[in-house]
Amino acid sequence: MNEKLLAGKHLWYFEYYTGGDVGLFMKIARMVHSEQTPIQRIDIFDNPTLGRVFALDGITMTTDKDEFMYHEMLAHVPMFTHPNPKNVLIIGGGDGGTLREVLRHPEVESVVLCEIDRRVVEVSKQYLKTGEAFNSDKVELVFENGAEYVKKIKNQFDVIIIDSTDPTAGEGGHLFTQDFYRACFDALKDGGVMCAEAENALYDFNWTKIAYRRIKSIFPVVKAYVGFMTTYPSGFWLYILASKGLDPIKDYRFEAARAMSQQLKYYNEELHKACFVLPNFVKRTLEESL
Amino acid sequence: MNEKLLAGKHLWYFEYYTGGDVGLFMKIARMVHSEQTPIQRIDIFDNPTLGRVFALDGITMTTDKDEFMYHEMLAHVPMFTHPNPKNVLIIGGGDGGTLREVLRHPEVESVVLCEIDRRVVEVSKQYLKTGEAFNSDKVELVFENGAEYVKKIKNQFDVIIIDSTDPTAGEGGHLFTQDFYRACFDALKDGGVMCAEAENALYDFNWTKIAYRRIKSIFPVVKAYVGFMTTYPSGFWLYILASKGLDPIKDYRFEAARAMSQQLKYYNEELHKACFVLPNFVKRTLEESL
Repeated sequence: MNEKLLAGKHLWYFEYYTGGDVGLFMKIARMVHSEQTPIQRIDIFDNPTLGRVFALDGITMTTDKDEFMYHEMLAHVPMFTHPNPKNVLIIGGGDGGTLREVLRHPEVESVVLCEIDRRVVEVSKQYLKTGEAFNSDKVELVFENGAEYVKKIKNQFDVIIIDSTDPTAGEGGHLFTQDFYRACFDALKDGGVMCAEAENALYDFNWTKIAYRRIKSIFPVVKAYVGFMTTYPSGFWLYILASKGLDPIKDYRFEAARAMSQQLKYYNEELHKACFVLPNFVKRTLEESL
Repeated sequence: MNEKLLAGKHLWYFEYYTGGDVGLFMKIARMVHSEQTPIQRIDIFDNPTLGRVFALDGITMTTDKDEFMYHEMLAHVPMFTHPNPKNVLIIGGGDGGTLREVLRHPEVESVVLCEIDRRVVEVSKQYLKTGEAFNSDKVELVFENGAEYVKKIKNQFDVIIIDSTDPTAGEGGHLFTQDFYRACFDALKDGGVMCAEAENALYDFNWTKIAYRRIKSIFPVVKAYVGFMTTYPSGFWLYILASKGLDPIKDYRFEAARAMSQQLKYYNEELHKACFVLPNFVKRTLEESL
């Protein structure tokens, strides 16, 4: 119906999903920023439907329209599972979206955000709404490979959130290794909680299985949960929560979650439980991966 | 990374989402069938990742890879809400996927499938796995506009499932009117249950709101639920269940759902409840639409 749009004056963005024969395209109404850093290519552009879009190496990281779905689910499930999350580490997340959600929690005293690419934080502060979160004086920025950084830390954090890019792209692969998850375990205090984005169930399900199996070999409590993320491949996103003992369903702070959900667009105290109910093929595939 | 694929010997399929500036592309490894019927254009092709893809007027209806997500959620939620679904009407659904799921229920004595386009059923039987469902002798096919057909029926069905195409495409718009929903109410027996696909929460949310408001004005019990449908726009699909009194959460047949879920790939007895837990922006938007 809109074939004429393909011709003419517009630029277009194509994100090829794993395999390369399916993907999402977006019209580029305005190219805002594009650069090649030593680590990866950063692109920021405006799309009439999705608003501002931020991509790394041709993989969509955030859009104004739907970034809340991913950031709320990645942050609030672990944050409300922990009874008192004072010290938080975010690995990756240089756009600031996860940081914004973590900072909503009044218990938080400090957040270390470890981002491998300084330029991601700099352009996010300049061009993205999510970048406003970096204005908080509770934030300490570390520009280093997350896997290297976390190895040096012991017994320091209540919650660690792994907000990585795809393992097949750029430097994200370092954040899916067994050594890395072990280092996260050691960097957590007793009673600590870790949460990792774990790719999608259609195009990159192997990465989910690998992450699940590796995390299961280290943490005593490991549960996968799901959420919509409409501009990520398939829209069907997985997360893995792991802890040193706390159960995300039995132990979460229901009343606090209910109170905060008033100001949120996705997460609420009932979804906190419902998101752990997995479709059969996801449940079976994860069980078989062990 | 795969830009070279754009050149060369392949055909490509582009589905433009509402607005036309975002969409999904798929490589066409083999074009299986393409025709213009009096109603719409039918395309069937093979994609290396998704398997066989079936589209109407450039809108993806089924792929081998993920059609189970949509068909299981559209069929089993109403079918397990009803205590004894003997007589079922499917409006649309000419690919046979919803029919296959309905026929899993041993209580079913007859299914009327009312499809406006005879050619959809014919090509589905010839080219799609879902078309095998038409071999059942419990099925009566009616080739007619669903809105016209249902007006003539009173007090006949236990369950009506509306498996329409997008309201903005082809003839799907007839299946989103107040008169149509009223006719469905009248075609249901006492205790009857209706379920309708209700588009997505990102690109076509206005249609969800319209359907919700109209159905709410007619049925005493109306609840929206959600499910992943990874090759539909946004991957975030909505469904509306309506009944003459049964509550899909309090009254559903938990044990029967649990037993059948062994043979299903998506739906299970816990998801039946969890799918009614809506993200905040969906809940608020539907409430505001009334």
